[in-house]
Amino acid sequence: MTIGIIGLGLIGGSIAKECRRAGYKVLGADASEKHKEQAVDFDVVDEVMSVDDLVAASNVIGLCIPVDLIAEKIPLVLNKIKWNQVVFDVGSTKRGICEAVRDHVKRSRFIAAHPLAGTEFSGPKAAVFDLFKGKKNIICEEGLSDEDALRKVVDIFNLLGMQSLFMQADDHDKHMAYVSHLSHISAFTLSLTVLDIENDEKQIFNLASTGFESTVRLAKSNPKTWSSIFENNSEYLSTALGSYINHLSEFKRILDEGDKSKSIELMERANEIKRVLNGMSLNAIKLS
Amino acid sequence: MTIGIIGLGLIGGSIAKECRRAGYKVLGADASEKHKEQAVDFDVVDEVMSVDDLVAASNVIGLCIPVDLIAEKIPLVLNKIKWNQVVFDVGSTKRGICEAVRDHVKRSRFIAAHPLAGTEFSGPKAAVFDLFKGKKNIICEEGLSDEDALRKVVDIFNLLGMQSLFMQADDHDKHMAYVSHLSHISAFTLSLTVLDIENDEKQIFNLASTGFESTVRLAKSNPKTWSSIFENNSEYLSTALGSYINHLSEFKRILDEGDKSKSIELMERANEIKRVLNGMSLNAIKLS
Repeated sequence: MTIGIIGLGLIGGSIAKECRRAGYKVLGADASEKHKEQAVDFDVVDEVMSVDDLVAASNVIGLCIPVDLIAEKIPLVLNKIKWNQVVFDVGSTKRGICEAVRDHVKRSRFIAAHPLAGTEFSGPKAAVFDLFKGKKNIICEEGLSDEDALRKVVDIFNLLGMQSLFMQADDHDKHMAYVSHLSHISAFTLSLTVLDIENDEKQIFNLASTGFESTVRLAKSNPKTWSSIFENNSEYLSTALGSYINHLSEFKRILDEGDKSKSIELMERANEIKRVLNGMSLNAIKLS
Repeated sequence: MTIGIIGLGLIGGSIAKECRRAGYKVLGADASEKHKEQAVDFDVVDEVMSVDDLVAASNVIGLCIPVDLIAEKIPLVLNKIKWNQVVFDVGSTKRGICEAVRDHVKRSRFIAAHPLAGTEFSGPKAAVFDLFKGKKNIICEEGLSDEDALRKVVDIFNLLGMQSLFMQADDHDKHMAYVSHLSHISAFTLSLTVLDIENDEKQIFNLASTGFESTVRLAKSNPKTWSSIFENNSEYLSTALGSYINHLSEFKRILDEGDKSKSIELMERANEIKRVLNGMSLNAIKLS
């Protein structure tokens, strides 16, 4: 089987590397000459070529381009494929993408996927083995995809070490606004706040082990990638941000009033996240 | 040399374990019967005893109790020591503590310290080796301490693998409000926001690898410990929180207006934190 990856950044490049390691032939295409050179230099793909040549020569085509371009490009790729070919995307928002292809004659050959993995780095140079291992992959509106097409794409994500879960596109975008996108804005703005006040950068460096470094980590993320994600999910994200700002304002009010028992109560509620994040494995241990 | 640790929680317990490993005799005291039992069961100290017995028998005494009790207890301990003994504390805020002992007749036998290390766990059970290794220790108003007393305490922190830095107490509290305390509130409120909206906890668990898990990590921290820290640093922290809320509100406005170039600009500024956090080591490499 030949897999064609369009867009050889962190995600596309890492999928490509993993598929090559598993013995697939992997073709690559990218709009950037630099990315194409790096993809060859860093052994990310077997060959780079034009999108047309890649589409003609691949059994499964992965569209791993920035999220603001996917909705526009997927119909163009679907136009070119035969009925035995399969296309998937890896975009971080899913509602707009699913809407853009809903009425396409070859909709059933498309799988809307979102592998939940990444680092704060980007480009083919950032592509690594085992990026996806043990993580979740979300597939949206799987009922609109042909069974053989779904099987082929799930097999590829299994190969990456991922568990595939199924979700409605709208639910996906709402959950992601709260659980992922809000975390990124929280970190970006934490960085801005600290950089604003701390003229002495050496002190930030000296004091960063106090929880700051892990909390602010996502502020290193790629601005272009994330501005597109935020734009594509702006409604849910705006609501999530509003809710976050309200919680912070309440905390500030309690702090200003010196209401210690109320602040303890809020933090005890926040502590619940420990149970939620560990919950599954703890339950599993208790049952055995 | 005999070291006495009053307060056998995560920090006190970990200091005790490390000093014992280095061959010191380590005595312990704690207000909690459970902590005293655990400190013996988990080999944290050589012996537990009353505060009075500990103070009488120790060359250096570390006060590792909750931050809201330190200002009250330090003068009481200083009253009891002889001029060749030394007392240090490890509180996360320093202004109030330094003020409480400024006029004490034995002020010069006290060292105001803050080792920048911790985990989200607490109690003697949470005490571990190498908690402090490679981290920074802040010492405030070192000019008010006797040289021999300072030397003894710096030696102990060196033994823990820490580098000691010197800072004014007021500067310490201001820096910590931005770099540490704000990160904690950011995480506590992120947890509250996500728990509010996500009725289905399984989805939080499934989607947590998207940056949420690391950003929210500090929300697992101990509410009593942190409410005292926040209370002791409420002025600077309230200003820091206000500034953070302003940055978030600006980000929300830009998102609502769909001003993508402005959001990219903000995130590029936020990216600067990468240079700040890596800066020192990168510079060091460039120089060599």
